[in-house]
Amino acid sequence: MFFASDNQSCASQPVMNAIVAANQGFTHGYGDDPFTQEAIASLKDVFECDLEVLFVPTGTAANCLALASLVQPWQTVLCHSSSHILMDESTAPEFFTGGARMQGFAEHAGKMSAEHLQSYLADAGDDIPHNPQVAALSIAQTNELGLVYSPSEIKAISAVCKQHNLKLHMDGARFANALAHLNCSPAELTWKAGVDALSLGATKCGALCAEAVIFFNKEDAKASMHLRKRAGHLISKGRLFGAQFRAWFENNHWLELARHANHQAQGLAQALALIDDVKIPWPVNANELFIILPKALGDHLNAQGAEFYDWYPSTLPEGMSLSPDKRYVRLVTSFLTTERHCHEFIQCIHDYQKASLR
Amino acid sequence: MFFASDNQSCASQPVMNAIVAANQGFTHGYGDDPFTQEAIASLKDVFECDLEVLFVPTGTAANCLALASLVQPWQTVLCHSSSHILMDESTAPEFFTGGARMQGFAEHAGKMSAEHLQSYLADAGDDIPHNPQVAALSIAQTNELGLVYSPSEIKAISAVCKQHNLKLHMDGARFANALAHLNCSPAELTWKAGVDALSLGATKCGALCAEAVIFFNKEDAKASMHLRKRAGHLISKGRLFGAQFRAWFENNHWLELARHANHQAQGLAQALALIDDVKIPWPVNANELFIILPKALGDHLNAQGAEFYDWYPSTLPEGMSLSPDKRYVRLVTSFLTTERHCHEFIQCIHDYQKASLR
Amino acid sequence: MFFASDNQSCASQPVMNAIVAANQGFTHGYGDDPFTQEAIASLKDVFECDLEVLFVPTGTAANCLALASLVQPWQTVLCHSSSHILMDESTAPEFFTGGARMQGFAEHAGKMSAEHLQSYLADAGDDIPHNPQVAALSIAQTNELGLVYSPSEIKAISAVCKQHNLKLHMDGARFANALAHLNCSPAELTWKAGVDALSLGATKCGALCAEAVIFFNKEDAKASMHLRKRAGHLISKGRLFGAQFRAWFENNHWLELARHANHQAQGLAQALALIDDVKIPWPVNANELFIILPKALGDHLNAQGAEFYDWYPSTLPEGMSLSPDKRYVRLVTSFLTTERHCHEFIQCIHDYQKASLR
Amino acid sequence: MFFASDNQSCASQPVMNAIVAANQGFTHGYGDDPFTQEAIASLKDVFECDLEVLFVPTGTAANCLALASLVQPWQTVLCHSSSHILMDESTAPEFFTGGARMQGFAEHAGKMSAEHLQSYLADAGDDIPHNPQVAALSIAQTNELGLVYSPSEIKAISAVCKQHNLKLHMDGARFANALAHLNCSPAELTWKAGVDALSLGATKCGALCAEAVIFFNKEDAKASMHLRKRAGHLISKGRLFGAQFRAWFENNHWLELARHANHQAQGLAQALALIDDVKIPWPVNANELFIILPKALGDHLNAQGAEFYDWYPSTLPEGMSLSPDKRYVRLVTSFLTTERHCHEFIQCIHDYQKASLR
Repeated sequence: MFFASDNQSCASQPVMNAIVAANQGFTHGYGDDPFTQEAIASLKDVFECDLEVLFVPTGTAANCLALASLVQPWQTVLCHSSSHILMDESTAPEFFTGGARMQGFAEHAGKMSAEHLQSYLADAGDDIPHNPQVAALSIAQTNELGLVYSPSEIKAISAVCKQHNLKLHMDGARFANALAHLNCSPAELTWKAGVDALSLGATKCGALCAEAVIFFNKEDAKASMHLRKRAGHLISKGRLFGAQFRAWFENNHWLELARHANHQAQGLAQALALIDDVKIPWPVNANELFIILPKALGDHLNAQGAEFYDWYPSTLPEGMSLSPDKRYVRLVTSFLTTERHCHEFIQCIHDYQKASLR
Repeated sequence: MFFASDNQSCASQPVMNAIVAANQGFTHGYGDDPFTQEAIASLKDVFECDLEVLFVPTGTAANCLALASLVQPWQTVLCHSSSHILMDESTAPEFFTGGARMQGFAEHAGKMSAEHLQSYLADAGDDIPHNPQVAALSIAQTNELGLVYSPSEIKAISAVCKQHNLKLHMDGARFANALAHLNCSPAELTWKAGVDALSLGATKCGALCAEAVIFFNKEDAKASMHLRKRAGHLISKGRLFGAQFRAWFENNHWLELARHANHQAQGLAQALALIDDVKIPWPVNANELFIILPKALGDHLNAQGAEFYDWYPSTLPEGMSLSPDKRYVRLVTSFLTTERHCHEFIQCIHDYQKASLR
Repeated sequence: MFFASDNQSCASQPVMNAIVAANQGFTHGYGDDPFTQEAIASLKDVFECDLEVLFVPTGTAANCLALASLVQPWQTVLCHSSSHILMDESTAPEFFTGGARMQGFAEHAGKMSAEHLQSYLADAGDDIPHNPQVAALSIAQTNELGLVYSPSEIKAISAVCKQHNLKLHMDGARFANALAHLNCSPAELTWKAGVDALSLGATKCGALCAEAVIFFNKEDAKASMHLRKRAGHLISKGRLFGAQFRAWFENNHWLELARHANHQAQGLAQALALIDDVKIPWPVNANELFIILPKALGDHLNAQGAEFYDWYPSTLPEGMSLSPDKRYVRLVTSFLTTERHCHEFIQCIHDYQKASLR
Repeated sequence: MFFASDNQSCASQPVMNAIVAANQGFTHGYGDDPFTQEAIASLKDVFECDLEVLFVPTGTAANCLALASLVQPWQTVLCHSSSHILMDESTAPEFFTGGARMQGFAEHAGKMSAEHLQSYLADAGDDIPHNPQVAALSIAQTNELGLVYSPSEIKAISAVCKQHNLKLHMDGARFANALAHLNCSPAELTWKAGVDALSLGATKCGALCAEAVIFFNKEDAKASMHLRKRAGHLISKGRLFGAQFRAWFENNHWLELARHANHQAQGLAQALALIDDVKIPWPVNANELFIILPKALGDHLNAQGAEFYDWYPSTLPEGMSLSPDKRYVRLVTSFLTTERHCHEFIQCIHDYQKASLR
């Protein structure tokens, strides 16, 4: 019962097959190979635009190379106070940007609003060297609580960004899951809504190791090939990334994988909603669900082999707090999650509750 | 009517005299001169302990060299959300520390409490490479709202720090003013209360250009001489700093200067308290006072030559907000401020109010 | 005819099979998986010692994480003036180390000697903050000219290092090729000869994407897991690296691959030695050979599809220079190179020479 | 007998008087004061052009802020292998530039030539992310051996720079001494000869603490005010620097101070030239002279209170080496050096030689 993260899964069969197929004979190194070129072509098709892209091995590298391309070392990157880029990537953003400020801000846990961003920026320092001026905003899609921003929410946020001359970065480690939830086009969810740069993660959704930094404005990408090389993220056998991305996009494989993962999360949520003593504090949009459960039950589940992380109490909905006899945990489903896995989890709970009644 | 900052003042006469006196003939360079050595001896006397000290030209350099000595690039420095080090020193802390995280936190504007620090740290990430672990706390004395922490408040904070293995840094750009307010010893306010490193500023209180980083644990200072050199802060004619600090401490000159500045702030506050339409939202501890006044009155004062800065509305006391017809401004007095300057300021207000009545 | 680099090859079949086999079901993320654990165990077996290891995707990351663990930002890393780490990794070493100095030095092209290192260090600056003190030496094995250091040469170099308190790093992007040439044990070539940290590259010798930083002193590795995370080099599906390394070591697969590559280089060198107009300025130890050939012949070979890089004329043997009608190029063989490829290359030269005679 | 460095001197009387005069009452902070504004106006007069300038406390800060404004972190700064910026400023250049490469190069000790620069650049790497492309050259005037580049030598060097798209920085810690030697205009020695940015040092030539970074192309200065602030080099009481620079330029005071220092060096050199056993390996252009003397004599001079530094043997003229019974030392004169000081030094040698004969 692996619900700790979608990166506990292997690669999907079609993605793996593509790696195997690409592993034949000689090619040029460093991305000058047909697999990489075809993956880039696929990306342009999928996003319906010209773009610059760098393939890299991790989401942290993708996020931070994007930010390092968008801001100067004396500027500030805004993000939600509980965002992954702030909480879970060490000080990688500071490292890659040469020491720019990372500034979390939040009205409350959950999605940020254009209104709150507007009011925050009204008090954010003048254009003097003393103040580290805000130069970019980073939002996650899906976000750190599994919530999905609609194209119109993103448009509203990007309008505030443009007004204050901020670049808009999207951390799309689970972009496919957001897309599968929304049923809109990748273009509508990114550049058409005002996103300047996207970190597109395939690893959590069926790839083995494949992330991309996508710049919708080529000007923003000027320094990026140097930044990637000096960060050690230019791999020599580029076909590894090229093959994965090409296969991921082929026949909408990525969206099928994401839809499956989301569907499992929905199923799990529905089953959990029927259980006394388990609360689901956030809506389940994509493939993450957060639950509050009795500590003893949580410990029992762990003992039975269920894997999941306790989550930051600061990310509970406003006004909600965690009593000491409860746990607040995150469950993540993936393309590899089956109904059997979910059923087993639910069954474990039922067994525990039954035993407790005795 | 210069109330914008205490750094608008010149150096005091005794400090200036000391610079002139030191400016004779040859000495060794880079701090190996009698003036510097005597200043270091004075510091040890004043703080009643052995210590390591680096003299540097600015408060930003002092704060950031201290922090760079206390934390690693993958760690986090906590400070109040409205602290000077976060708001007014560009991204210098990130630069000097090699990209450590600066994390503002606050229950509300004003002083931070040991209780809030404790509850913040309870939710601050685990000891895994993903989380940028908190390794130091920086507090300002006097703080960014002119408030002074008592030795017991500092002790309570440092106890939490020790419990969580954090180093405690004090930004003492206005340390003399705090000391003058408290009537305790420098030792009681620093190492005896658990402070590990102090940035001691003389510039705002009668020096021309003289700041010090003081390490109460020599082990913490190991890298600091290298950090200072590579930041370009090792001046060749070290007697400039040595002479100033020696004179500053001589005959308690520093405390006299600070007492005078504080006294002027008290006088100004008392006069302002009698004026309708002017509110003083924060207690006046040292040499800074914050007032809320009608916008038209503030503009009139500026037009009459009064200098002061509008302050961040986010630093108003909890629950208080700023209506559009008001201004929230900071007034700072210095050793050079006289009763005449304060009287002139008050008179300006009276004149305006009289004229408005007509 | 792909002789530009050994990274133009795919992964070997056993390595690829291992990736496929590891790609089953769920595992823990971030290296806490059986494949990674077994790869670490293999490494300890192969090197006959306890050690700390980080798996990363590129040689640049491996080299720079090693150096960042060994030196402070105010120190200097010495290396040969024509080393890969200096010429071909952008400013990655400066980036990862937080701005340490990279200092190339050389008596002449080729291998560095303990004697020259000794004499260089005699004049390398005092222990004062003004001088960026040398704290580490990095040598490449095989080196940038395909030459291999013997264990006794390394011992002599490490003795000078120890005398001057320098850490010794080995860039082992082609370590397997050196080992295959020398017929000694991995331990004899590293920690037994005084090497502190090794970047061990599998990618150029049969892996798809798998590099390791190995610390023979655990103390040196203390910060490395943080450095890796904040550089974005901690991949989530660690089994990718674990599976490759395990398979690479199994049944001495790595050495077979390296022996094959070396053998092809020897064969090619012998055939080229018989050709008028082609000079081989450096002995062929491992899988790289450098030749000087008429420009027209080189251009003809390129036109026929032969791939290779022109090399830095500064790396010619002392006293040798390049006339404008010549090219100085590098040829690299790999496990995938066959006698047919080499024959085709030689045949191309014969055809050209025959045609020229007419 | 203080010949260790010209920074062992105090400030000149006119410069000190100016500091005292500026130390009256209130001014705006951070350089928005009349003294700073007048100093900037003086600079424009002196250099006969519009320019951007930052005043900073040290030469290291001036050099490194200039370089950080001219190159990107993935680029390379070239300089002479024995330049001050490479040997004596720790890793400050790497720190300020965010990790750019510092690359020393030299045909031999002494001045660099346009021809050697040209040949060096011919082999310096391609425009690919692997190679850290050279983007700037830094030369010192006077240089690290007290030698002065003529305007035509600088023009020849800057022509090569322009051809390869390099920015040209001049480290002018002893610029006044070079100017005094050459009898040309400041403009002829800088922007008219192709210099893009100049670090102009006053400290070594009569100021107490006053250095300037001058950008002759305003475009190059765009980021510099942010770089200065985040490096902690924006002092609050800017009048300190303003007053010094204004007084330094007034009535050609700077050139008089420099001429005096140079004159003393010439006198000392002439007297030393007459002494057996003392060699002067480099021409004496400005205020530094280098001598080779018997070790016993050097030790005697030190014992008698003469101060000077032993210099790097690698900076001896080509083909010259240092026998173990000799010392190679640097003597520096300043505006404060008198004929009496020089005479005392010579007398000391005579006394020693006389005593040795007995």
